[in-house]
Amino acid sequence: MNDFTFQNELPELVKSITDNYREESIFLANSCCPKPNRSEIIGIIREIRELMFPGYFAAEQIREEVADYYVGQRLNNLYEKLTPQITRALIHEARAKGEVCFKKEADCKERATQISLDFMKHMPQIQKLLVMDVQAAYDGDPAAQSKEQIIFSYPGLYAIFVYRFAHILYQAKVPYIPRIMTEYAHSRTGIDINAGAVIGKYFFIDHGTGVVIGETAIIGDNVKIYQGVTIGALSTRGGQALANVKRHPTIEDNVTIYSGASILGGETVIGEGSVIGGNAFITKSVPKRSRVSIKNPELNIREDLRNE
Amino acid sequence: MNDFTFQNELPELVKSITDNYREESIFLANSCCPKPNRSEIIGIIREIRELMFPGYFAAEQIREEVADYYVGQRLNNLYEKLTPQITRALIHEARAKGEVCFKKEADCKERATQISLDFMKHMPQIQKLLVMDVQAAYDGDPAAQSKEQIIFSYPGLYAIFVYRFAHILYQAKVPYIPRIMTEYAHSRTGIDINAGAVIGKYFFIDHGTGVVIGETAIIGDNVKIYQGVTIGALSTRGGQALANVKRHPTIEDNVTIYSGASILGGETVIGEGSVIGGNAFITKSVPKRSRVSIKNPELNIREDLRNE
Amino acid sequence: MNDFTFQNELPELVKSITDNYREESIFLANSCCPKPNRSEIIGIIREIRELMFPGYFAAEQIREEVADYYVGQRLNNLYEKLTPQITRALIHEARAKGEVCFKKEADCKERATQISLDFMKHMPQIQKLLVMDVQAAYDGDPAAQSKEQIIFSYPGLYAIFVYRFAHILYQAKVPYIPRIMTEYAHSRTGIDINAGAVIGKYFFIDHGTGVVIGETAIIGDNVKIYQGVTIGALSTRGGQALANVKRHPTIEDNVTIYSGASILGGETVIGEGSVIGGNAFITKSVPKRSRVSIKNPELNIREDLRNE
Repeated sequence: MNDFTFQNELPELVKSITDNYREESIFLANSCCPKPNRSEIIGIIREIRELMFPGYFAAEQIREEVADYYVGQRLNNLYEKLTPQITRALIHEARAKGEVCFKKEADCKERATQISLDFMKHMPQIQKLLVMDVQAAYDGDPAAQSKEQIIFSYPGLYAIFVYRFAHILYQAKVPYIPRIMTEYAHSRTGIDINAGAVIGKYFFIDHGTGVVIGETAIIGDNVKIYQGVTIGALSTRGGQALANVKRHPTIEDNVTIYSGASILGGETVIGEGSVIGGNAFITKSVPKRSRVSIKNPELNIREDLRNE
Repeated sequence: MNDFTFQNELPELVKSITDNYREESIFLANSCCPKPNRSEIIGIIREIRELMFPGYFAAEQIREEVADYYVGQRLNNLYEKLTPQITRALIHEARAKGEVCFKKEADCKERATQISLDFMKHMPQIQKLLVMDVQAAYDGDPAAQSKEQIIFSYPGLYAIFVYRFAHILYQAKVPYIPRIMTEYAHSRTGIDINAGAVIGKYFFIDHGTGVVIGETAIIGDNVKIYQGVTIGALSTRGGQALANVKRHPTIEDNVTIYSGASILGGETVIGEGSVIGGNAFITKSVPKRSRVSIKNPELNIREDLRNE
Repeated sequence: MNDFTFQNELPELVKSITDNYREESIFLANSCCPKPNRSEIIGIIREIRELMFPGYFAAEQIREEVADYYVGQRLNNLYEKLTPQITRALIHEARAKGEVCFKKEADCKERATQISLDFMKHMPQIQKLLVMDVQAAYDGDPAAQSKEQIIFSYPGLYAIFVYRFAHILYQAKVPYIPRIMTEYAHSRTGIDINAGAVIGKYFFIDHGTGVVIGETAIIGDNVKIYQGVTIGALSTRGGQALANVKRHPTIEDNVTIYSGASILGGETVIGEGSVIGGNAFITKSVPKRSRVSIKNPELNIREDLRNE
């Protein structure tokens, strides 16, 4: 066979795929209105990081004396990028619900403008939270050589940074965008924090790969979490019927959760000041200031493999 | 010291590295024939995704009325990109086996053209499978706000999407490319599905980081898997002697496997309709409709850390 | 509201953020001196890979006869890129410590030049180690179809490759850069090897997502590690007081550690030739040639879910 074979088969191939498009509206998905654009949203995350930590990620060196111009220009950029993405998300959702009148679209634009401005008003406060998160990482990790190193390279800080901003949009009920943001961070870090979770200050995730924090989890201040920790649901067999139900645990202040531990269920509360040992599997509440560990991890140790 | 020192040392440095090239043929690896190109292969994955879900990932908005042109042009592009990569992979493998005659290369080209066409003929059917995978994710995850959100951002869907296409090339015995594809998805999602695994429809992986599905695993329809699940081999001490032996489990239809569970061994069968609890470690078959959980996870709980 | 509202609010927003910059010096972080640049450092990793495995990652085909020119030009490039990044890192650290005199900066440049040259002198030897790592992967993984496949796509090899070079810079006490390198590999592979760890030859990490190897871990020759393995610290509550203390285990030669196992503590030694089973949780030393497994993993198996 040769390229002619392909050319001959092409029309039928095209038809099979466009038939699929016609059969399932999900493929083209309201093709008339533009959807939020993933690359743009990743660009927005980058813009925000350059604003939050200009000393590390801005293309230029920013001196304190001229920082006003830098910040003003950057905030303006961000507004110009973020507002249309939010508008697209809101209009697309409205259309998906069958609300397609012109008036509705104007409402979406108005609401997007408001949300975008509110988002930016949260930025200075989140910046303060981030500097506390850096402090928590520095205090909590003997391998941290400096706070600069944490800002440059710690995946935990990156995931928390993205989560804190995505959470603002989640609270404002913006569809699609918060999850695109947190999944981008998940992709880069292996840390999956749902934008719906509520997380206090001085939060530190060390190493982080495999961490999952569910949508309805509530986490207090000064909590430290290691790689592979799940703060998840007990069962999801209820499917969509469980949407909006509290399915994930509450972790009170000053708790440390070591690697691989699973804490499950919407009724589960880890009391203030507790330490949860590695690989613990917890489905019930534990009182304040508990130390939980798996019972003397029972191991078979057979020595001398020589005779096998 | 200064830059002159470097210039003086350079010739000896060059010699040490080129000596390595000469000693071990793996470094240059048949430099005369071009190998498959990783960036091109990643570009191919992107092309396929734009064809499968144009409403989300195509640069333009695609209206149903003009979708034929879009699809025709895109399939043509894909064919032009995919065929040379498969040709390179086949020729490189032939050369590595010492088959270097001109006739052999012509055979490789012919075979690549055939494989490329067959690949594209599978596309409409895989597209139908993908829409079922989206449905499975929507039904299975209370946090899913819409099917659009799943297509935009769920890592599980992305990994399954890449796997389903890589599997076609694996079945056609194309070297290098299927693994480059699935490892790219692994890199983005933390989900490592070997292109050799056989997986049914309505498949859902939630969160996904740390999931490993081995080369000879067989997974039925309507299976749901959570983060950190291994469907793996019992031991690999046999090394290459175990190639082509069934080393990984069979998971029957309608099974749910919660986070962190390990299911190991080529003889292990998880019976239809079973539910495997979090962190379970299973090396033997379990009957149909079993519910397996780790025995009342034994924990030491010491309250009140105040006196420590 | 509309865009005017944003313009009106902008000055106050700018002020809040620049106030943060002024309050916490960490945000601008010695804005007068350029810091190492993450993109440049990622570019350096790419350069090194093209030098180590030109047959796979170089843009052109490199024939053995002309390899001298390729290598010479590439080493020169690398030197030109690496030296300024090391200089920036050293100067930035000196300033952070308050050492800002001109003489000190000249010292930093001199030291950077020396470190850069030493780094390159290590390259041929590391290249030999890498070819042994490829061999270990091929011997250890029945799914490996060829050594080429491993070089093209195995995340374990990638993480080890980056670690081996970052370790040279860690030993030379270069700040920031080693961690930026290993965290980049962590981001791509889910494998987190601290640049401070000491690792022998013939090292293989299979699948790899979730692997953590701590800063003071010591790993012998011919060690094989699977996904989700932690070689970590017992507790980090000491925080910065534990810096420079050996907090992570020693793994002797010829040890295999299966998926999900945790080995913790600076005093813990896994004796030569041992096999550590999946999910084992080890906080004490085990003698040479031990086989450790979790005690018959106790599971509740309830059959027939029909009546629930």
